[in-house]
Amino acid sequence: MSGFSELEFISLVEREFGKGGGKNVLLGIGDDCASVSPAPGHETLLTTDTLCEGVHFRTAWTTPRQLGHKSVCVSLSDIAAMGGRPRSLLLSAILTGREDRKWIAVYVRGVAEAAKKWGAAVVGGNVALGKSLSFTVTAVGEVRKGLRVDRSGAKPGDHLFVTGSPGDSALGLELLKKKRDSYTAAEKKLIARHNAPTPRVEWGPALAEARIATAMIDISDGVALDLTRLARASGVAAEVDLAEFPLSNAAKGIVAKKGARAWRAVLGGGEDYELMFTVPEKKLGALSRLRKNGKIRAARIGMIVKGKPGIMVPGPSGEGLEIGRPGWLHDKQ
Amino acid sequence: MSGFSELEFISLVEREFGKGGGKNVLLGIGDDCASVSPAPGHETLLTTDTLCEGVHFRTAWTTPRQLGHKSVCVSLSDIAAMGGRPRSLLLSAILTGREDRKWIAVYVRGVAEAAKKWGAAVVGGNVALGKSLSFTVTAVGEVRKGLRVDRSGAKPGDHLFVTGSPGDSALGLELLKKKRDSYTAAEKKLIARHNAPTPRVEWGPALAEARIATAMIDISDGVALDLTRLARASGVAAEVDLAEFPLSNAAKGIVAKKGARAWRAVLGGGEDYELMFTVPEKKLGALSRLRKNGKIRAARIGMIVKGKPGIMVPGPSGEGLEIGRPGWLHDKQ
Repeated sequence: MSGFSELEFISLVEREFGKGGGKNVLLGIGDDCASVSPAPGHETLLTTDTLCEGVHFRTAWTTPRQLGHKSVCVSLSDIAAMGGRPRSLLLSAILTGREDRKWIAVYVRGVAEAAKKWGAAVVGGNVALGKSLSFTVTAVGEVRKGLRVDRSGAKPGDHLFVTGSPGDSALGLELLKKKRDSYTAAEKKLIARHNAPTPRVEWGPALAEARIATAMIDISDGVALDLTRLARASGVAAEVDLAEFPLSNAAKGIVAKKGARAWRAVLGGGEDYELMFTVPEKKLGALSRLRKNGKIRAARIGMIVKGKPGIMVPGPSGEGLEIGRPGWLHDKQ
Repeated sequence: MSGFSELEFISLVEREFGKGGGKNVLLGIGDDCASVSPAPGHETLLTTDTLCEGVHFRTAWTTPRQLGHKSVCVSLSDIAAMGGRPRSLLLSAILTGREDRKWIAVYVRGVAEAAKKWGAAVVGGNVALGKSLSFTVTAVGEVRKGLRVDRSGAKPGDHLFVTGSPGDSALGLELLKKKRDSYTAAEKKLIARHNAPTPRVEWGPALAEARIATAMIDISDGVALDLTRLARASGVAAEVDLAEFPLSNAAKGIVAKKGARAWRAVLGGGEDYELMFTVPEKKLGALSRLRKNGKIRAARIGMIVKGKPGIMVPGPSGEGLEIGRPGWLHDKQ
């Protein structure tokens, strides 16, 4: 068959990621398995995520370099959300064989750049011929025993925080869907938050190592759904106060114009890769110090309370906000 | 949308694989990451493989239970080929949303059964909506430091061995492609070797722990290609003697009838998940003891020699056998 072949992809990957590399990598790409050396006294964290063409990305709306970064971001965000540090990555691609060589080469380069930037070695992977383009990144991380932060540890009375400004990604995606020829500077910022998210690889461990967070989750499927997961896993209820919500300036403009409709996108949209975490009263001082020292950017958005596990989000005018969810967490783009 | 949803899949997976389970599993399915406890003095082995509908399997030719087993087999075979033992698995599925609920449920049950049978805990995974059905299994294994067997350690003078009877799987696939209404008992055996392969999870570690194998690889893409990989990685040449090749009785019948054409399928076809390994002269006695004690079933198929890295396979009548390879290692089924 014509097009991009398995052997070409493998040689590209070997060239980009090298055969060794990484301080705890004993054997990199090129054998049946990779081999890595676990650090004594640490647990090994494992997570995997898939991005499919036409569902999670569109080649028309993202550059291959951005998509390479995002593929890595998605999994490293999960490692950060447990308080761990990333160590190794495996990249699995399903190619149709019709891909443009340069597009794939730039994608792989993007994965390599992102892995290096965020502290993980790409140690292996796989390529398969399939009917539709997709990429799966499996990440391996480590956290010192006793420091891991699960989503199940929230207690009534804990304060609820998020990093960054969640919602920007969903608003950026809505703009992309309009397929306009040009966007304002503020709109471009939102689009960049969708196409080029940053996993909070330093912030998650900082919260864990200072024993500040009682529960943590990354915001991959939207504040509403991910907070529901945290609340259910912890057996608590969560109250969100939208007046405190750290909207970006760009998002504030849209919310001012569109009200509840924009809030639904902000809270329901996903793909922020920010962290959401709970902090007991007595740790608020420690969190303030981290924030003052520039170790984390986080804002309080509510409170954990007793009650039926779930979330309460009074809308901007006080009434309950309906945040619908489809059965699938990603609509077809 | 209608059909099988992400949340249904996750609840199915949680039910089958449980939330904890496995002696070195600290945290199973249900959080951002799984957490496992690496054994002191061991390296961590990592591998990932993907099976795509229409390329690596056809729902018409395999039962979902068989496919569940095979998904696990493919990755555990890689762990065995390094001399390691499997510990944990992550299952990533891309579903189209049109899948039959029962088919998916039986597939997941098959993964659970196979993981349990072969000694790995399913600790996590992912499900994504996509345009075509596929399953990716990432396996995590362990091998004691110093015992790992790479594909690069073969030396001239080493003897070349394979486990089981490679080629059965490819001959079985050729029979499936004929779509006949009925098959003989011998043919059914070949088809079973294609649809229900067994990873050599005990044999690989047995060879490593007795320090018998200098190089090892699993036969996933055919003896010819995988031996070429081993030879190139080791910088040696390999000579295969077909007179010694451990054909199954069913395969012997086909080879007797079809000659070189059947040999090309046997050597070029793949998906055997047997092990191929090299043994220095002085370790042949130790290997014999393993075989006599029933710890492994293996046959000598040739020799490692000095020369340009590659393989030599004289055909049944002495001439060189042409073993063609497409650019992609799996033809579309």
